[in-house]
Amino acid sequence: MTFQHLIEDCLAEHVGEGGLPRAEFETALARAVVRLEALRSEWRAGTSALLALPSKRDDLPRLEEIAADWRRRFDRVFLIAIGGSSLGARALAAALPASQAAPELVVLDNLDLDEVARLADPALAASSGYLVISKSGGTDESLGQAIVAVDTVGRALGEEARAEHFCMISDPGESPLRRLAAEIGAPVLDHPVEIDGRYSVLSLVGLLPALLVGIDARAVREGAEATLAANLSAGEAAPAAAGAAIAHGLNASRGVSQSVLMPYDGRLATFALWYRQLWAESLGKGGRGTTPIQALGPVDQHSQLQLYLDGPWDKLFTLVTLPKRGQGRAIDATLADAIGLGRLGGHRPGDLVAAMQRATHQALVERGRPVRRIELERLDARSMGALFMHFILETLLAADLFGVDPYGQPAVEAGKLLARRYLAEAGEGNGGGGAGGGP
Amino acid sequence: MTFQHLIEDCLAEHVGEGGLPRAEFETALARAVVRLEALRSEWRAGTSALLALPSKRDDLPRLEEIAADWRRRFDRVFLIAIGGSSLGARALAAALPASQAAPELVVLDNLDLDEVARLADPALAASSGYLVISKSGGTDESLGQAIVAVDTVGRALGEEARAEHFCMISDPGESPLRRLAAEIGAPVLDHPVEIDGRYSVLSLVGLLPALLVGIDARAVREGAEATLAANLSAGEAAPAAAGAAIAHGLNASRGVSQSVLMPYDGRLATFALWYRQLWAESLGKGGRGTTPIQALGPVDQHSQLQLYLDGPWDKLFTLVTLPKRGQGRAIDATLADAIGLGRLGGHRPGDLVAAMQRATHQALVERGRPVRRIELERLDARSMGALFMHFILETLLAADLFGVDPYGQPAVEAGKLLARRYLAEAGEGNGGGGAGGGP
Repeated sequence: MTFQHLIEDCLAEHVGEGGLPRAEFETALARAVVRLEALRSEWRAGTSALLALPSKRDDLPRLEEIAADWRRRFDRVFLIAIGGSSLGARALAAALPASQAAPELVVLDNLDLDEVARLADPALAASSGYLVISKSGGTDESLGQAIVAVDTVGRALGEEARAEHFCMISDPGESPLRRLAAEIGAPVLDHPVEIDGRYSVLSLVGLLPALLVGIDARAVREGAEATLAANLSAGEAAPAAAGAAIAHGLNASRGVSQSVLMPYDGRLATFALWYRQLWAESLGKGGRGTTPIQALGPVDQHSQLQLYLDGPWDKLFTLVTLPKRGQGRAIDATLADAIGLGRLGGHRPGDLVAAMQRATHQALVERGRPVRRIELERLDARSMGALFMHFILETLLAADLFGVDPYGQPAVEAGKLLARRYLAEAGEGNGGGGAGGGP
Repeated sequence: MTFQHLIEDCLAEHVGEGGLPRAEFETALARAVVRLEALRSEWRAGTSALLALPSKRDDLPRLEEIAADWRRRFDRVFLIAIGGSSLGARALAAALPASQAAPELVVLDNLDLDEVARLADPALAASSGYLVISKSGGTDESLGQAIVAVDTVGRALGEEARAEHFCMISDPGESPLRRLAAEIGAPVLDHPVEIDGRYSVLSLVGLLPALLVGIDARAVREGAEATLAANLSAGEAAPAAAGAAIAHGLNASRGVSQSVLMPYDGRLATFALWYRQLWAESLGKGGRGTTPIQALGPVDQHSQLQLYLDGPWDKLFTLVTLPKRGQGRAIDATLADAIGLGRLGGHRPGDLVAAMQRATHQALVERGRPVRRIELERLDARSMGALFMHFILETLLAADLFGVDPYGQPAVEAGKLLARRYLAEAGEGNGGGGAGGGP
């Protein structure tokens, strides 16, 4: 394990009636372990594409080759991708340092106009690569921006040049994105068909962008592989089973409806966003599930902690911590003494963070709030892989406890159809000639 | 009004039993209006420092003078401030364009080591200003970083030079931050004593940093002033009273425990963080309040919408929209046609966003989820002032309905004391000589 998973302070025997009674924990844990055993069988039989990902290596040389080529040719890569197609890569890029000569990774996931303006800037075309990821190959936001990018590169560098600046990732089979790639002669890599976007971080979807900025993709998979193996062989000691049992048990017996993930390091803020999608889309079905909430320490002590300590009894807290002591520039003791802050003198900013993450945990316990802690030894590619795998497993096991299908997101289809209708009603657009055509 | 406030789709008569029955809405509204009348009396009598802020002008010349001086002298300003001392400024800076020659605003609010390393970089000292804001004058995170900054500037430029690079904002009266300013001869501006950090955005706390990057602080106040006046004279038609009544009514009668603020523009993502602090710290007391959740459209359609549409019935949604049609580079129709996406051809990215914000609203309604919409006419300094004032009023009125004190955050004190104890237990630090001294 590259991290400690401490759940004792979620139990009633530690935090009082806001916590989960041990008997209920053990019942839920036993159920989670049954599902874990089934996952183990799928893994052994090789029937789960998702669980096979961590030990996959044969795709990496090709991905590394593309990444090395792009790193050499481009100053920036526009990642045109949204939701599960971008959050894993964003989490990795935010958590880990880029290599020195790495291109800038510009993620286009919100159709914001300044983003689109940059995408449409012909002056950037020659030094830019454009990686478009859409599992279905038909995501309106991403396809709209991909067309703008293709158009921009064609105008700036000529139509022949477009193929060299684009790479697409999409499911096999006919789709608008595949047709766009064919139109310009750009390569398309296969999105793993069986794997939903929010579970795709360990596939090329997360790892090609990671490789582009110099992250060790093999180490990410190795970290995931070790965590998967450790969980599959651990039975009732499996951290993912315990996490799922706590989340479901607190919901069922205490009405805990929210799961707050609060890393104490800004580099993990985007990881919390990745978790937020994973948990929300996988479990939020048929009126069930709990709401994931991303937080960040220490800053949210000065924003959310009042609510966490003294608000409604509806939250499970997960703190993610790193060793911080001794890190950063020492606070000058003479100056600290002079202004009456001797308590800070000689300490380093990391010492403050170390004290604060411990204090927040203890303050929550003293208020009777269920809190678990994930203590990472270090933040690197391996530990990121471990975190991804832990929460993927925890989510799959929790889905079983909540009685929902962890895959798919059927409710959002209605919104997509409405958006298309409204777009059509808004007329033929404001330029670019007749729209027509299409399905 | 610079925005429309549409609450009909929070009512049961529009969305079914997930909504608030009109009779309960009207009861809550009447109570909110009583509190609003009291606020009106305070405002008229001039006894509320908070409500007097929007019409204050006499402090602006001095703030503009400092800002103009700093804009001339510095390439960047480090804002050393956390929680309510920084979120308002961050929200303004994210929402509005900086003027052309504006210094970069670097906000230090999380003790992250890369932030601290930049703060401690002597090569940046000559071209940097350091604005330190702490209402109490004793926030450990900010004071620790302020000492690092003072130390850095002293080493790089000499002790005499420090005064010219620093400005502090703090309550009047003795405090470590006041002593630090005295130690180096830097100016200190008064934090308004009666105003908690999370309500301070319309004071110098939010507006001095805003002025530094060229935002029109007067227009921010004018927008707030117009919204305040419109609410105070509107009785039952006051948008803030309606918003508070909806939030409390849904909580009381439908168990709605979460308030999701989802702007459809990346520039308002940080505003949602400001709102999240305001709502959480003001209401989260004694087991009461609801949990604010920041979201962002369109991106969270691909992350949270499944949960929002089909998860537990525990959320009130507020969409903040802007006119988007016709904005951005047109999507090439020929290319769109060629790949079977004729529906996108000729449209602009803004058209897609316009269709999506409308579709999300309608999809929520069709699922029976309570949703209100705040339609901004445009995003500028005035409308930001209006948004701040609306939510400040709504929070004050909601606090009355929830029966909590909107001021103070008493629960967090225990955590601060624990952190200091753990810091002391961790020893005298790892460098910088003996710590000793002062409380």
